[in-house]
Amino acid sequence: MHTPICQRLGIEFPLFAFSHCRDVVAAVSKAGGMGVLGVAAYSTERLKQELDWIEAHVGGKPYGVDLIVPNAYEGKGGASASVDALVDGLPAKHKDFATSILEKHGIKSGELDEARKNAGGFARNLADGGASSLEVAFQYPIKLIANALGTPPPLMIEMGKQHGVAVAALVGAKEHALAQAAAGVDIIIAAGTEAGGHCGDVTTMVLVPEVVEALSAANIDVPVLAAGGIVTGAQMAAAMAMGAAGAWCGSVWLTTPEAETSEVIKKKLLAASSRDTVRSKSRTGKYSRQLRSPWTDAWEAEAAPKPLAMPLQTFISEPPLRLIDKLADGGHPGAQELATYWVGQGVGLMNEPLSAGAVVQQFKEDFARAYERLAAAIGA
Amino acid sequence: MHTPICQRLGIEFPLFAFSHCRDVVAAVSKAGGMGVLGVAAYSTERLKQELDWIEAHVGGKPYGVDLIVPNAYEGKGGASASVDALVDGLPAKHKDFATSILEKHGIKSGELDEARKNAGGFARNLADGGASSLEVAFQYPIKLIANALGTPPPLMIEMGKQHGVAVAALVGAKEHALAQAAAGVDIIIAAGTEAGGHCGDVTTMVLVPEVVEALSAANIDVPVLAAGGIVTGAQMAAAMAMGAAGAWCGSVWLTTPEAETSEVIKKKLLAASSRDTVRSKSRTGKYSRQLRSPWTDAWEAEAAPKPLAMPLQTFISEPPLRLIDKLADGGHPGAQELATYWVGQGVGLMNEPLSAGAVVQQFKEDFARAYERLAAAIGA
Repeated sequence: MHTPICQRLGIEFPLFAFSHCRDVVAAVSKAGGMGVLGVAAYSTERLKQELDWIEAHVGGKPYGVDLIVPNAYEGKGGASASVDALVDGLPAKHKDFATSILEKHGIKSGELDEARKNAGGFARNLADGGASSLEVAFQYPIKLIANALGTPPPLMIEMGKQHGVAVAALVGAKEHALAQAAAGVDIIIAAGTEAGGHCGDVTTMVLVPEVVEALSAANIDVPVLAAGGIVTGAQMAAAMAMGAAGAWCGSVWLTTPEAETSEVIKKKLLAASSRDTVRSKSRTGKYSRQLRSPWTDAWEAEAAPKPLAMPLQTFISEPPLRLIDKLADGGHPGAQELATYWVGQGVGLMNEPLSAGAVVQQFKEDFARAYERLAAAIGA
Repeated sequence: MHTPICQRLGIEFPLFAFSHCRDVVAAVSKAGGMGVLGVAAYSTERLKQELDWIEAHVGGKPYGVDLIVPNAYEGKGGASASVDALVDGLPAKHKDFATSILEKHGIKSGELDEARKNAGGFARNLADGGASSLEVAFQYPIKLIANALGTPPPLMIEMGKQHGVAVAALVGAKEHALAQAAAGVDIIIAAGTEAGGHCGDVTTMVLVPEVVEALSAANIDVPVLAAGGIVTGAQMAAAMAMGAAGAWCGSVWLTTPEAETSEVIKKKLLAASSRDTVRSKSRTGKYSRQLRSPWTDAWEAEAAPKPLAMPLQTFISEPPLRLIDKLADGGHPGAQELATYWVGQGVGLMNEPLSAGAVVQQFKEDFARAYERLAAAIGA
């Protein structure tokens, strides 16, 4: 395709792959789309390793980096952003509740506080507003930098302009799109409520045209990528028929062999229907969509403590979930039941394991079929 | 368009208008789409009047009728289906809560029980499984009969086959689509969670391709209409790119001059964004999407009583809501705040009042533009 966004970013097909796995990023970029590495929880050392690897394997194709610097979170700007202090202050009620879920499923958790202190990568990156991650990322020839959960920090926008790197930001409402475009964001990613991970409550089918129309009415010429529930080329074509410049997908890569997802989770995702996800605050403190499991059900029950604010809830949930993943992979039946991961409602359409490159190829073919379908309907 | 569903139903453009207003039904059918009259709460006398009027005004164009015969509701098959008995058995807690919302907004409700007994049209129709409504409807040359909230009753499917009338049914999950197609339904309406009125929790963007794929995998050749959030031709084109045979829309007609909606509600709908709706059980006892107002907020608050089962909650909510509408139209400020109506998230895209015929015309033009957009992207 020779659309403006393809020309600007030097890509062949405007399919963007958000992934925590470098292998997916490189594979998608090599297949003509654009891989974007999610680095929210990485230390600067780890980030360097990952970007070095991508540089060595991406064959000169364009790729990007995605951070999470929310506008609002617990401890912002304050001394309490020290990870140890945050962990020491976690309420016993929440820690005990997490432990009780594990115990009900035959898992002896032991002491999780040490793991909690080591799980603080995300909170550490929050504490400096993403500055050290940005400094590393811009040492590489990235073509896009993205932010979730609010207007990107001014430093990200400045560095983007300085390095000629497109700055993208996720939004869940048209008001946010207008605010972010005004702040200097180059690409708006409109993410519907069906999206895996953090999401608002407006659906992709409504949000995409609403954002496109709001920007157009304000005479703002910023391309909009559609996100949320999109796992096929026909859905991507649908979004582009509504004015999107392309699709931003996360879930669809989770069942590829390249992905970081464990085998247990992959199996669960391939078997799940669109009704097997839940939008819950229990993982990070803000609403994020996940695969339903007895873990998420327990947190959604009336008896559960209300999730803590971001990033505190992450310290409550991540260490037990890491333990669950480890035990699940080792064959522990209780852990296999509890295992969960972020995924969107599009999981209902993810029914076969394909390589990341094959997914891109299938998107292209399915997109063409969707176009032919419309052409036939309209008699063109 | 010369698609199979257009040929089968004798329509020009596969846009279906669900409306409680005969004027909308006739106008849409005359403009090339297909109007479908929602008659769930009508007495047989009223139904005859409405269908006589449509016959006299539709110019020989095809139209349809829509009922609600849920698979599960309170009092099904039992003696308690008598409206007076149902109203007498309503808990004081719920009635008092409704009254307290009115009072907080300066409305003296007086005695609502008499109004509750007169508001029982929907429950009465439930009591005979829709049989008397079906008998009347099939005396008219309708081309489609639709059911919501479950597999249509066997009588509806039998009468449809006997009269050569297509039987359609709304579904919110692929399992329901498969069950309904197996029961003999001719057209599946896949309604996403963003839909106004009763809705499930899977979004249109995911549900439509999921249902299309599930039917295709089962070798079932039943067309799928997309519903939920669709208020523009570009969204309709998007749905058809994903395999839908057309679009089923309800909300978009509510701001037309032909609609039954009051002026106060019309103004609120035109001003609302996609985030101004709520999916709540408080109106009918099953989840339905409505415009948010202090009325719905009160029912969503933690202190609110849990909504009763269908159809009991309707007796709690409808009489106060009718009173609110009446007072709101008379200029009562508290009533204007409380006023609400069923509407989908697409309300965020409904920003100008157009006649029903003009809406159809705009859909056609917008559909063509969406197609051109895709053609340009693909370089066709």
